[in-house]
Amino acid sequence: MPIIVQKFGGTSVATQEKRDQVAKKVKNVLDQGYQVVVVVSAMGRLGEPYATDTLIKLARGIVNQIGPRELDLLMSCGEIISTVIMVQTLEKHGIKATAFTGGQAGIITEHDFNNARIKEIKPTAILKCLEEGRVAVVAGFQGVTADGEITTLGRGGSDTTGAALGVALKAEVVEIYTDVDGVMTADPRLVPQAKPLEVMTYQELCEMAHLGAKVVHPRAVEIAMEGRIPLKIKSTFSDGEGTLITDGTPIGKIEIRKDRVVTGIAHLAEMALVKIHSETDMNESGKVLQVFEEMAAAKISVDMIQVAPFQISFIITQQLADKATTVLKNLKLQAEIETGFAKVAIVGSGMRGVPGVMAKMVRGLRRLNISIYHSTDSHTNISCLVKQTEMVKALQALHEEFELA
Amino acid sequence: MPIIVQKFGGTSVATQEKRDQVAKKVKNVLDQGYQVVVVVSAMGRLGEPYATDTLIKLARGIVNQIGPRELDLLMSCGEIISTVIMVQTLEKHGIKATAFTGGQAGIITEHDFNNARIKEIKPTAILKCLEEGRVAVVAGFQGVTADGEITTLGRGGSDTTGAALGVALKAEVVEIYTDVDGVMTADPRLVPQAKPLEVMTYQELCEMAHLGAKVVHPRAVEIAMEGRIPLKIKSTFSDGEGTLITDGTPIGKIEIRKDRVVTGIAHLAEMALVKIHSETDMNESGKVLQVFEEMAAAKISVDMIQVAPFQISFIITQQLADKATTVLKNLKLQAEIETGFAKVAIVGSGMRGVPGVMAKMVRGLRRLNISIYHSTDSHTNISCLVKQTEMVKALQALHEEFELA
Repeated sequence: MPIIVQKFGGTSVATQEKRDQVAKKVKNVLDQGYQVVVVVSAMGRLGEPYATDTLIKLARGIVNQIGPRELDLLMSCGEIISTVIMVQTLEKHGIKATAFTGGQAGIITEHDFNNARIKEIKPTAILKCLEEGRVAVVAGFQGVTADGEITTLGRGGSDTTGAALGVALKAEVVEIYTDVDGVMTADPRLVPQAKPLEVMTYQELCEMAHLGAKVVHPRAVEIAMEGRIPLKIKSTFSDGEGTLITDGTPIGKIEIRKDRVVTGIAHLAEMALVKIHSETDMNESGKVLQVFEEMAAAKISVDMIQVAPFQISFIITQQLADKATTVLKNLKLQAEIETGFAKVAIVGSGMRGVPGVMAKMVRGLRRLNISIYHSTDSHTNISCLVKQTEMVKALQALHEEFELA
Repeated sequence: MPIIVQKFGGTSVATQEKRDQVAKKVKNVLDQGYQVVVVVSAMGRLGEPYATDTLIKLARGIVNQIGPRELDLLMSCGEIISTVIMVQTLEKHGIKATAFTGGQAGIITEHDFNNARIKEIKPTAILKCLEEGRVAVVAGFQGVTADGEITTLGRGGSDTTGAALGVALKAEVVEIYTDVDGVMTADPRLVPQAKPLEVMTYQELCEMAHLGAKVVHPRAVEIAMEGRIPLKIKSTFSDGEGTLITDGTPIGKIEIRKDRVVTGIAHLAEMALVKIHSETDMNESGKVLQVFEEMAAAKISVDMIQVAPFQISFIITQQLADKATTVLKNLKLQAEIETGFAKVAIVGSGMRGVPGVMAKMVRGLRRLNISIYHSTDSHTNISCLVKQTEMVKALQALHEEFELA
């Protein structure tokens, strides 16, 4: 029987009403003849009794430092509790289910607390559970090392659990449930015309995620991509079809239109533009290397990098501007750092080798008199830096220009 | 280095003030040069945010039935949380410590949820932790099956964890911390002269426990006895020496006085006396067997059993009197069940073969005009049934008669 993995985040399991919605989603695919693995995050938010945050607050109230090993032990309870509550909810809806900790589900990780990588998955127990006609409810975000230490997977960990289980179980699809209807062509709060995409590639989703669209964790997308398991981003609270993420080959009737150049518009707000000038060649003087080494040492991420002999420029998040100023002053470099910018980007695997995409982007911005202060491009995205005050206007202009509505 | 296991129950870890007391107890033995293993129960009581009960209530609110496997999974989180909070507390007091789940501590149980028996202990990880100069904090009440299922040990489970770890680690002593100063000669709420015993045998403690003294779980005592590891019952909140439990051989300067006949007085309140009469021999008619078979089938525990051809009598807890009446009516037996009794018992390994102990007991009760309605004796205890209204008087009389104060 084909297998579907369904991952539900913290907001989807926060209240009984929402958990009942989750049960309906499970029932839907069971009725279609699938075996189902459900991955859940911890339920609570700060202040709720069973919240991981409440426990961490308690532990930190005793001594502020909490060891990484003990922190993982504590945090793992949040998802375990969630699995039992979800089993109870499924039973309420007449669905037989069994709860699994990460370790019991066979999720083996590296020996690295708080941010462990999954090494392998031994899904024997899960498969046995499915064969018995039961739903397997697995605690997301956690695993166990070969020597029995309990680890957590870091940010986006439950997405990763879902994707990795999907690959290990050769699932037909991994469904990531959120509170939005799928991946949108742009942020709907800023671009009212934005609509959910029917289908996109793993790479496009990764680009969108790295560019600020917080739908699914990039690591989960990479795992699904490597294992060639389709992802689906859906809403727990609506009946929309969601967005299918594939490698580009058609699935059933769903395929990516050959003529689609741009898939979506992404943005990153509140950025600062750094420009470094020199009268001598900075390649020769070693300043180029120094700049990026010192930025890395100060833990400042740089983006949209342009290097030329007498000028280096890149962007950083606005809140690190002061820190960067100090770094550059120490290097005795002539630099100007200007805040108040935003990055807007068009993303699409289809723009590879298609001429005129940049021209179309410039045209869209130009029409509304939006100036471009900086730009970079790769084969699947073009990013432009605009004034923060013009960001929303720019997003709407590009959405219209590329006919995404 | 010698090892001490210290077990702290739910009340000892309920608040930060109490947990700080626990840390002092740990520090004391560390300062004496011991390696220390701490076993903890879950912290909370109903209503507290991190309480096991809160979680169970939540789960049962969804569907009232909760599977035994999922119940164990849920409950195990309570003790795991406790270990992390205790590690934090020890760190606050400058003590390096590491938390262990039951499984990580190597506690392997039978595949039997909610009431699993410990099969074996593989203390490799604990020993490694101790050798690194750290305190091992182990989640009580839980273990793991050979195939990775998380189990709980049933009532008194954390005591059992403590005793079993003590045996596996060849500890010098297992200290069971409670909120009383040790095992008392009688219930101090009823007998103001009662005082803590300095030393007693495993068997005496078992007798006291079975007779209603709720200090430590009998299974834990049996494990310690089989492994010949001394137990110590102490208070978390005082500096008393507590009660040492041994097999009778002296430990250091502490030994059981040879002339001690009676160690303590125990009692069980609110019992009913069942008397069955017959004009024909109940052995021959098979009625004797029938009575005890049917009582067992109805899950009614019987105690103080006396069987004679034409009369059978025994006691049961008062609340089961109606149920027993029905059972006996169905057997068409002539029976009378009278409620309002209490069992008072003297316990002591030293009474073996000592003549006149029963006489002394009767004399003590007689002096206060207390009638005996029923009695049984073994080589280490004599129990008498008295009117419930005279129970307290009887306890005080016996305490005085055997000079326990």
